[in-house]
Amino acid sequence: MHTLVLIRHGQSAWNLENRFTGWTDVDLTEQGVREAVDGAKLLKEAGLTFDVAHTSLLRRAIRTLWLVQDEMDLMWLPVFKTWRLNERHYGALQGLNKAETARKYGDEQVFVWRRSFDTPPPELDPSDPRFPGNDPRYASLAPEELPRCESLKLTIERTMPYWFETIAPEVRAGRRVLIVAHGNSLRGLVKYLDTMSDEAITQLNIPTGLPLVYELNDDLTPLRHYYLGDPEAAARAAEAVANQAKGE
Amino acid sequence: MHTLVLIRHGQSAWNLENRFTGWTDVDLTEQGVREAVDGAKLLKEAGLTFDVAHTSLLRRAIRTLWLVQDEMDLMWLPVFKTWRLNERHYGALQGLNKAETARKYGDEQVFVWRRSFDTPPPELDPSDPRFPGNDPRYASLAPEELPRCESLKLTIERTMPYWFETIAPEVRAGRRVLIVAHGNSLRGLVKYLDTMSDEAITQLNIPTGLPLVYELNDDLTPLRHYYLGDPEAAARAAEAVANQAKGE
Repeated sequence: MHTLVLIRHGQSAWNLENRFTGWTDVDLTEQGVREAVDGAKLLKEAGLTFDVAHTSLLRRAIRTLWLVQDEMDLMWLPVFKTWRLNERHYGALQGLNKAETARKYGDEQVFVWRRSFDTPPPELDPSDPRFPGNDPRYASLAPEELPRCESLKLTIERTMPYWFETIAPEVRAGRRVLIVAHGNSLRGLVKYLDTMSDEAITQLNIPTGLPLVYELNDDLTPLRHYYLGDPEAAARAAEAVANQAKGE
Repeated sequence: MHTLVLIRHGQSAWNLENRFTGWTDVDLTEQGVREAVDGAKLLKEAGLTFDVAHTSLLRRAIRTLWLVQDEMDLMWLPVFKTWRLNERHYGALQGLNKAETARKYGDEQVFVWRRSFDTPPPELDPSDPRFPGNDPRYASLAPEELPRCESLKLTIERTMPYWFETIAPEVRAGRRVLIVAHGNSLRGLVKYLDTMSDEAITQLNIPTGLPLVYELNDDLTPLRHYYLGDPEAAARAAEAVANQAKGE
């Protein structure tokens, strides 16, 4: 039996400001910091520990991981950072206020951009400072890997190779893996692990900072999954996931 | 021309308490935190940046690196952590107060343990909780790699393979490398780069938190090195290094 833990980063500054964030490198709020530390305490109480961790290239995920490592006395843990675990790239919407965007483009269009599986938002021009090709952290990406915008489908398609090539072999080799990432990159992993439909995954909202524990068979099919923490909150979250997995 | 930067971690709790630290995993003091942030500011002012960083498995070095990454907006940087950059293992002296140790073993003996190139301190028994074989972070080491105590010579011998096998190839490939480590593992690198004698290296004291910049030829011989910061303090530190390099 293998154990894998997923954590969605804590609240960020733009969650609070209700802006489209995507690959914008905003930091955690004070509440986000508390969520990360509380998540680490739950992991300690559950007696869980790790051999390796993976995260994105965005500071709200990295800081969440650092806070977890610090609290768990695991600062020495090997950590791998990859753009493939980044949040969905929100294209030309990045930085815009969600309410303003709705006034400009209409509620229906914004709803589609936010909730559809495969409709990408308006794309960025490569000359835009928000285009990842203008950021040194993405210098090692091939030109065709640099997103101008991403639907959830495109996000999942660039996340999953990292699961198959890097994380899954580690889990299979018996390493205890922690993944700290974002709502949409984690949706990709959960969709795959729980064989959820395209429709169901758009409705899944993973809570921030709450460790999501997967117990996996040797062939990496899930035996069960559960959230750590207050049993009632965890049960509510788990039920929501289960219902969405059934497509309800 | 290649640039390589070395930083010795800021002040730790046991520097302050005057205790033999070695591989004991003590944290930075508030002053140590300030030293790290100040070092990062000097790097920014000098217009330096990095492609990759290396550090030890000890939190005073890792935290120093994290503070530098945070201040420089480089949290996304790939970071590799290795026991080979750890501080010298102080064997059975770890945790003891230096003044008390001098009263117990005599000033002369303690002076030899602290300042000789190749006399190791008393060794730990493998049943001792301080023995690295009892710490999960060293689980991947071969039994013969686990130190019971180290002289400066032994420290340098286990540090340098990491230079030759990992760091030097990166520098040669044009990557801008930051190393955040400890007084004695950094002595190993400096001794090699500046071809210093065994005697001279025992007298070299690298200042904490002050970035030490090496400009290297294509064959990795140093063109020059200098400390960043207040020119007077940097000149004094550089002169001390130069004099010690000559064996004075």
